[in-house]
Amino acid sequence: MRFFEDIKIGQRRELGSFTFTAENIKAFAVKFDPQRFHLDEEEGRKSLFGGLAASGWHIGSVCMRLLVDDGQRQAGEMIARGERVAGWGPSPGFRELRWIKPVLAGDTISFASEIETMRTSESRPEWGILEARNSGTDQRGELVFSMLATAFVPRRNSTA
Amino acid sequence: MRFFEDIKIGQRRELGSFTFTAENIKAFAVKFDPQRFHLDEEEGRKSLFGGLAASGWHIGSVCMRLLVDDGQRQAGEMIARGERVAGWGPSPGFRELRWIKPVLAGDTISFASEIETMRTSESRPEWGILEARNSGTDQRGELVFSMLATAFVPRRNSTA
Repeated sequence: MRFFEDIKIGQRRELGSFTFTAENIKAFAVKFDPQRFHLDEEEGRKSLFGGLAASGWHIGSVCMRLLVDDGQRQAGEMIARGERVAGWGPSPGFRELRWIKPVLAGDTISFASEIETMRTSESRPEWGILEARNSGTDQRGELVFSMLATAFVPRRNSTA
Repeated sequence: MRFFEDIKIGQRRELGSFTFTAENIKAFAVKFDPQRFHLDEEEGRKSLFGGLAASGWHIGSVCMRLLVDDGQRQAGEMIARGERVAGWGPSPGFRELRWIKPVLAGDTISFASEIETMRTSESRPEWGILEARNSGTDQRGELVFSMLATAFVPRRNSTA
């Protein structure tokens, strides 16, 4: 993907959208979040969510998938243009994950990623550190998901 | 689960452990995080992780599963004792998720949850708000995963 020097605060990428269905909501919940409002329509309706609701970890994992797909698409385009692709470092984590509104069966969430902060690493000058706001917006244009992810990105003069 | 008044800062629950295998690491990664070091042993060995590494979202999702199982076990015990079980609210999100060390195929991670902060809600006096530090420790006793989750917990005098 891109080098630190080629990235600017405010740059935004649309990552694509995903429709949460009763089937994929339940398939995730059975494995990782077997709470009744993630497993059963009627229990969902009776809950504060008001319907069969996707696990928050399902929403985050779908966002991750779209980020990876976008990165691979971006890398493919760079290779096609003969550019050098930067190898980003593993993520150390993130801050401020917020599940703002329920995501219910039938909702289509569009995800995006926008660069929010950038700084160079003092201890490892060959790396930059950026924070990206990854967000999800439903088909009514309402923000449902937001997180601030940290990434280590190589600088152009490094060998990474 | 428990009411706000029955919870104290520092209370800790051991949630149980989970062994990440090549099979379950790849099964998660194919769906949600198809990066090469999560899909292929040799690519993992060549990466900064040094082996086939679990997706960070897989680790968080497994922690969620063990939290749900523990909550359901706890509720079952309370019902057996004839106690009233509190209905916790949906989580609004969390802060400070950290992937501290790689989790590689064959690693067994023990998860725990410890109450870190508690306060009453000013706008909704029938609810308390707590933050729990959920963490994962590998078979060598090294911390690999940590997050600070927020939960809304009903107060005993509420009707929730």
